Amino acid sequence: MAQIRTLLDLCRRRGFLYQSAEIYGGLRGAYDYGPLGVEMKKNILNSWWQRNVYSRDDVVGIDTSILTPHPVLKASGHVDEFTDLLVDCTLTKERFRPDKAPQVTLDKNGHLPITAPDKETAQQWKKSIGEQFAPNVLVTVEGKRLLLHVDHVVEPVKGHAGKIVFKMNNEQAAFELNYHGYVEPNTNSPFLTDSRPFNLMFKTFLDPIDPIDRVIQTTMNQAGESKPTVREEVDKVLKPSTVYLRPETAQGVFVNFEQVVRTMKTKPPFGIAQVGKSFRNEIRLEHGIFRTPEFEQLELEYFVAPWEAKHFYKYWREQRYRWWLEHATHPENFRQRDHESDEMAHYATGCTDVEYLYPWGWGEVEGVAHRGNYDLTQHIKNTGANFEIVDEKPCISPDVEGEIDLIPKETPARYIPHVVESSCGLNRAMLAYLCDAFHQVEEGKGKPVRNVLKLHPRLAPIKCAVMPLTGKEEFIPLTKKVAKSLRRMGWYTVVESQKLKIGKRYYRHDEIGTPWCVTVDYQSLEDETVTIRDRDTGHQERVHWKQVQTFIGDKLMEPEDDDI
Amino acid sequence: MAQIRTLLDLCRRRGFLYQSAEIYGGLRGAYDYGPLGVEMKKNILNSWWQRNVYSRDDVVGIDTSILTPHPVLKASGHVDEFTDLLVDCTLTKERFRPDKAPQVTLDKNGHLPITAPDKETAQQWKKSIGEQFAPNVLVTVEGKRLLLHVDHVVEPVKGHAGKIVFKMNNEQAAFELNYHGYVEPNTNSPFLTDSRPFNLMFKTFLDPIDPIDRVIQTTMNQAGESKPTVREEVDKVLKPSTVYLRPETAQGVFVNFEQVVRTMKTKPPFGIAQVGKSFRNEIRLEHGIFRTPEFEQLELEYFVAPWEAKHFYKYWREQRYRWWLEHATHPENFRQRDHESDEMAHYATGCTDVEYLYPWGWGEVEGVAHRGNYDLTQHIKNTGANFEIVDEKPCISPDVEGEIDLIPKETPARYIPHVVESSCGLNRAMLAYLCDAFHQVEEGKGKPVRNVLKLHPRLAPIKCAVMPLTGKEEFIPLTKKVAKSLRRMGWYTVVESQKLKIGKRYYRHDEIGTPWCVTVDYQSLEDETVTIRDRDTGHQERVHWKQVQTFIGDKLMEPEDDDI
Repeated sequence: MAQIRTLLDLCRRRGFLYQSAEIYGGLRGAYDYGPLGVEMKKNILNSWWQRNVYSRDDVVGIDTSILTPHPVLKASGHVDEFTDLLVDCTLTKERFRPDKAPQVTLDKNGHLPITAPDKETAQQWKKSIGEQFAPNVLVTVEGKRLLLHVDHVVEPVKGHAGKIVFKMNNEQAAFELNYHGYVEPNTNSPFLTDSRPFNLMFKTFLDPIDPIDRVIQTTMNQAGESKPTVREEVDKVLKPSTVYLRPETAQGVFVNFEQVVRTMKTKPPFGIAQVGKSFRNEIRLEHGIFRTPEFEQLELEYFVAPWEAKHFYKYWREQRYRWWLEHATHPENFRQRDHESDEMAHYATGCTDVEYLYPWGWGEVEGVAHRGNYDLTQHIKNTGANFEIVDEKPCISPDVEGEIDLIPKETPARYIPHVVESSCGLNRAMLAYLCDAFHQVEEGKGKPVRNVLKLHPRLAPIKCAVMPLTGKEEFIPLTKKVAKSLRRMGWYTVVESQKLKIGKRYYRHDEIGTPWCVTVDYQSLEDETVTIRDRDTGHQERVHWKQVQTFIGDKLMEPEDDDI
Repeated sequence: MAQIRTLLDLCRRRGFLYQSAEIYGGLRGAYDYGPLGVEMKKNILNSWWQRNVYSRDDVVGIDTSILTPHPVLKASGHVDEFTDLLVDCTLTKERFRPDKAPQVTLDKNGHLPITAPDKETAQQWKKSIGEQFAPNVLVTVEGKRLLLHVDHVVEPVKGHAGKIVFKMNNEQAAFELNYHGYVEPNTNSPFLTDSRPFNLMFKTFLDPIDPIDRVIQTTMNQAGESKPTVREEVDKVLKPSTVYLRPETAQGVFVNFEQVVRTMKTKPPFGIAQVGKSFRNEIRLEHGIFRTPEFEQLELEYFVAPWEAKHFYKYWREQRYRWWLEHATHPENFRQRDHESDEMAHYATGCTDVEYLYPWGWGEVEGVAHRGNYDLTQHIKNTGANFEIVDEKPCISPDVEGEIDLIPKETPARYIPHVVESSCGLNRAMLAYLCDAFHQVEEGKGKPVRNVLKLHPRLAPIKCAVMPLTGKEEFIPLTKKVAKSLRRMGWYTVVESQKLKIGKRYYRHDEIGTPWCVTVDYQSLEDETVTIRDRDTGHQERVHWKQVQTFIGDKLMEPEDDDI
């Protein structure tokens, strides 16, 4: 974990990541990508698009609106089912997700300790417990710690609440508190509300008239009515202008399914790729850019005949995993993990995560899911859209395991396509590859440890730093010529003319992952050759300056591989 | 205008543009970009980034959060000043922007005609006018037209309302209606509310607890209080979680100014570029993707010493205009236009638009603005951030016209940088270049007119279509080899093996702007040569298949130009 702190410090210090609106105290869970971060993010995106769209005959891209009308997300199930259960602690007023909260902890004396921020709060909480819950529960206060004397705990069983039975400081019957198997994570407090579902989508209003004003006015007009009645009236007023920020890019693909089939003259098996921002009002933010309310997705929806779904689910699991490994320095820190049936989203019938071993443990970077035809069917039900495929000569893959029943008995075959989805988080992909690339090099006794980002050249923000050996004027023209020849290829190239020794400049570029440094030196002035230094080996090679373009080009190109 | 309908039809039919959520009846003003649209949009973006970031030493990129906290946009002036004036028609219930609404029209008899959708509505409106405004105004109904008998009209003068004086059907004094110089655009109705300012920003709430529920609860708790008091209380409750969807990408750049200077070790003159989505709750939507609530900006904020601002304002006006012309087929349809002082945004001290002559008239595609140091100063005032530049050796450009007073008298010079901004709408850029590229070719008598998109190769969605001459198996291996060699360069390349004659396939690609078609024919099987067909000339050249990569690469490369 010390390493991750050094890495995050590097990211701030060298312009990968900033806290959003930092001068205003920041915005909870929001990050800005600095000059190097924006390039690295773009490189991951481009590599993904290159592999999943440009390298193939059967996938096209799309870019749909972030603002999404209510009926689309009602049909997809997001309005009703895309929720987190949340619990409030009535003592500390904290809100949290019970599924990730710890069990109650007792100390060696069998007391339940609750830690307040300070002594005064501890006394207040003691008073609250007496007033709100049970006046005569036995509580000791030690500084800012409350110790509640517990008689025994009954664990919950199969959804039935257990209880915590407290000792009393008088002869009264013991006080019993419902216990669902979790406490408030920061303080160990067991004084909680019931869990309630909260929708994760951001709502806004496509109408310049301030919706808040309308809600107030409507509520005032309904004075004397019950809250549910008022709510119903308010929803009626707001409904025509209510839109959501999309919680996933996938729905934009599904609602356009028929248009893409028609205009691109395609049919299954084929895929539609989309990259872009999605938004989720997460209560639980984690590990910097790993989980944030605003995030970027790389999604591929691959449409197939029902009897081909298992085949392509297997195919895409392999393809996608391979992409992850190709860009990794430590492939052993990536793994695939099949979901348990109770982990899956409401639409999925099978899901495999690609996970990366972050410094805090394994975390999902991509999910490959077999979504069945849930989404298309829902949109058909709600709109009558024609998403049916009529296939005169259905293709049957050789390895249609366990799907024999689905193979069409007669032709033309008619079906609603099934979907295999690959959904990858761009921000957490960047974090994974940063962790994967981060190395520290010991330079020997008395010398400081230095950082190297061993990023894959295709992901590195800067492809090449071109530098004159010293500040002398005579090195400038060739330096510029080399830089220009690389920039014309569309590679991010910087001219590094800071007044630092050449070695220091190399090290500065090692720290941000620049794979190659080109130096113009005295020999260059004679024979137009330059040196190319490799970040990982430190090895230098001398080539004519015009060859630098080809040297780098060869290494940035996609692998030549017949399997893709 | 017939041409634009053919073009928009082409865009729908060939996968450039779809109406968003079409199967649900669409979302007002929202568009989705199909497989070709997404590529063209990306190509414009990449060309912009290549020119403004990669080709230069002095500009870096950034990517900041769309969700923006209230204080940032309060300081920038957007909360208070980013508004449209809106007027409601009390007769038709339509809402409109008065600045674009027409003056009142009278017919040759001096009557004011109001056109209702049908006869019944006309009768209802007649009744409303009698009840709401003046019972005895003289009104004739002719079918669905109301004719109000007008005595005379007094035009408004310098902000003072004029009036419309109506004739009465009895001896009463004439009825006078306030007249501000505009009527409801669709019906000519003069029965209007006063104009009210409406903020253009989308608001949402960074908190999974439903804000609407909170507003209702707060309003109910304040029963009996006046609306302003309730509103105040509601705002207090909502304030901590209120965020806006950014109305421009620029503010994300300004609030990060100091972080970029520090982490990238840079100083003025230098620029920060950002591309991404912005959102404006526009009441007036126009011309498809020309004005939409969700749109994409390409913005460059270039920071300079105050005495250099005019110099760089001039420089960027030229640079940016040149970029537009470079990609144009008809440069004469692009122009520069300086803003009048009353047209400028609240922050600007000078602005030049680049305009394109759309089929409906000139429209802005980019604004180059001299923003002064308004934004940085506002953020300093509100946060105490240190945005001051200390320059030991200030640089003075040779052409510092009229800015002599600003040149520092002593060193080090200390100043808050001024900003020259280039702000370009990506969606309307795409629309402009589509209009610019659209041609119709007459093939001779009896043959249908065919469409050609003469898009600049860098902007064309597909760079190359590789096609076997016929459906014979023997052509496939070389076709695939050529396609793969181009795809490895990152160029969008399709294999076109539809069962159409080769000429038809060429024409299909002309229609979507593919600059080159490569054909594998019988001769290819003997000597490994292929033909490359040029979209604009129809000319075919025969080269070895391995040369296709270089042939296309040379034409896609940025111009070699020392001025950039």
